[in-house]
Amino acid sequence: MSIYSLEELLVQAVDAAKSAGEIIRSAFYQTKLVEHKGEVDLVTETDKKCEEFIFNFLKQHYPDHKFIGEETTAACGATELTDEPTWIVDPLDGTTNFVHGYPFVCVSIGLTIGRIPTLGVVYNPIMDELFTAIRGKGAFLNGKPIKVSSQSELVKSLLATESGIKLDKSTLDATTNRINSLLFKVNKCCFIIMFSMNVSGYSSEHWFSYNQVRSLRMSGSCALNLCGIACGRLDLFYLLGFGPWDIAAGAVIVAEAGGVVFDPSGKELDITTPRIAASNPLLKEAFIQALQQSE
Amino acid sequence: MSIYSLEELLVQAVDAAKSAGEIIRSAFYQTKLVEHKGEVDLVTETDKKCEEFIFNFLKQHYPDHKFIGEETTAACGATELTDEPTWIVDPLDGTTNFVHGYPFVCVSIGLTIGRIPTLGVVYNPIMDELFTAIRGKGAFLNGKPIKVSSQSELVKSLLATESGIKLDKSTLDATTNRINSLLFKVNKCCFIIMFSMNVSGYSSEHWFSYNQVRSLRMSGSCALNLCGIACGRLDLFYLLGFGPWDIAAGAVIVAEAGGVVFDPSGKELDITTPRIAASNPLLKEAFIQALQQSE
Repeated sequence: MSIYSLEELLVQAVDAAKSAGEIIRSAFYQTKLVEHKGEVDLVTETDKKCEEFIFNFLKQHYPDHKFIGEETTAACGATELTDEPTWIVDPLDGTTNFVHGYPFVCVSIGLTIGRIPTLGVVYNPIMDELFTAIRGKGAFLNGKPIKVSSQSELVKSLLATESGIKLDKSTLDATTNRINSLLFKVNKCCFIIMFSMNVSGYSSEHWFSYNQVRSLRMSGSCALNLCGIACGRLDLFYLLGFGPWDIAAGAVIVAEAGGVVFDPSGKELDITTPRIAASNPLLKEAFIQALQQSE
Repeated sequence: MSIYSLEELLVQAVDAAKSAGEIIRSAFYQTKLVEHKGEVDLVTETDKKCEEFIFNFLKQHYPDHKFIGEETTAACGATELTDEPTWIVDPLDGTTNFVHGYPFVCVSIGLTIGRIPTLGVVYNPIMDELFTAIRGKGAFLNGKPIKVSSQSELVKSLLATESGIKLDKSTLDATTNRINSLLFKVNKCCFIIMFSMNVSGYSSEHWFSYNQVRSLRMSGSCALNLCGIACGRLDLFYLLGFGPWDIAAGAVIVAEAGGVVFDPSGKELDITTPRIAASNPLLKEAFIQALQQSE
């Protein structure tokens, strides 16, 4: 197998992402032809066109490499991740946003070597934001170095997650309860303390709740949520239920921005499982605790 | 009182919003000095600076007009809305986003005449998007006409709301249950039908749920959510708990884009109450029903 420098690979990946982004941008403002994949999971013509373009482009340059893509996998079944250099591509993350003209859409191109996320490119063509990272070489937004937030308190943190789709009742309840519990801590003791201090306003309530995190955002793009952590716009992110294409690029971008990506249980991240959490290192332990208490 | 044309008033309002937007944009990328107003409600230096600028600017041009602003009201108590021309201003909607560098922030300037939202300007200086409307004269994004989505099915609609802050336990539960119920419809009958058709996959569940709307977005800016409805990026929006400054401009922009703004109960909107829903006219009845069922 030929040897390429990671810098050279990044240049090609950026080139592919920008060209695919051009396809997305021009279609974003036009009427869209939409196919259905289940009730709410949309795959657009653009999605397929972008994946084809990116795969053809990268395969021409790197015929020996492996490829995993959302569209291909959806059509051909699961593709196993091996130790070989593997391009993991989401040609259009945020398809629902795309269909609705909501500006959080992106191309996500990651490369794993020895199963480790090694190179990542996430490009939002609507906001013209290009996030890039090579393992060990830092993370960048439009060429400028980025780093995660320095927030150390959960209560001052901005949390991102998604509402999920196609859930059965028990998963739905678990998801909602988790969000509920992450947003608010309900504590009977607090009520009593408040009461004994003669602070009015909660006398008709038997429980007192306070914010555990500052607020919640749902943007509809997993890759952009990870980039939001990387550049400090968001402090906490977790998601259950997605494919490796949603996180392969974002995981290395977060890590190179000084952040941590991990399994919500606190274990090491396995990009082939549909569970991820991300934050800065200062918040990690408190976030894991909050996630565990919310289960 | 002097008489001004609405077109002239719009020119001045846009001028004020763009100048305030410049203040916001330059501060957005810098370290921010933040004051606290409770645990999660942030008021920034920029917020105050922008309100001062906008009020001074408009008062110079329109000394006879009345003014209601979030910062002034927070400092001086509630200001009553009268029939006189009244500028209702949120100098920086999305303060939490601003503090975190999340790009959904805006200036919102509305004018009511006879208590009716008559003119609206919402400017997002980070994404450089200017939404404008004059009652009876259409709505525009950066000068181009906009209109609400033509979506007629709840299940294909993108819903926006916010998670809320400083909630007591019962309000919290009501808020979560409402979101839960709006997102998913849980139906025992469906399970039985599925079962009798011998469709597997739900045999271990006693309830079957399906999406009532396509997905949920939380952006952290009420005014931008209303503009999202106006330009068709979002299909449904509702919010409880806010001030008239959050909706005075957005209400006229939605209406002029062909949309409807109303009380979530289905009654007429009263901009002095903290309850709003917005959609296109095709979705209104189904949305009201879903909101009522979710109570």
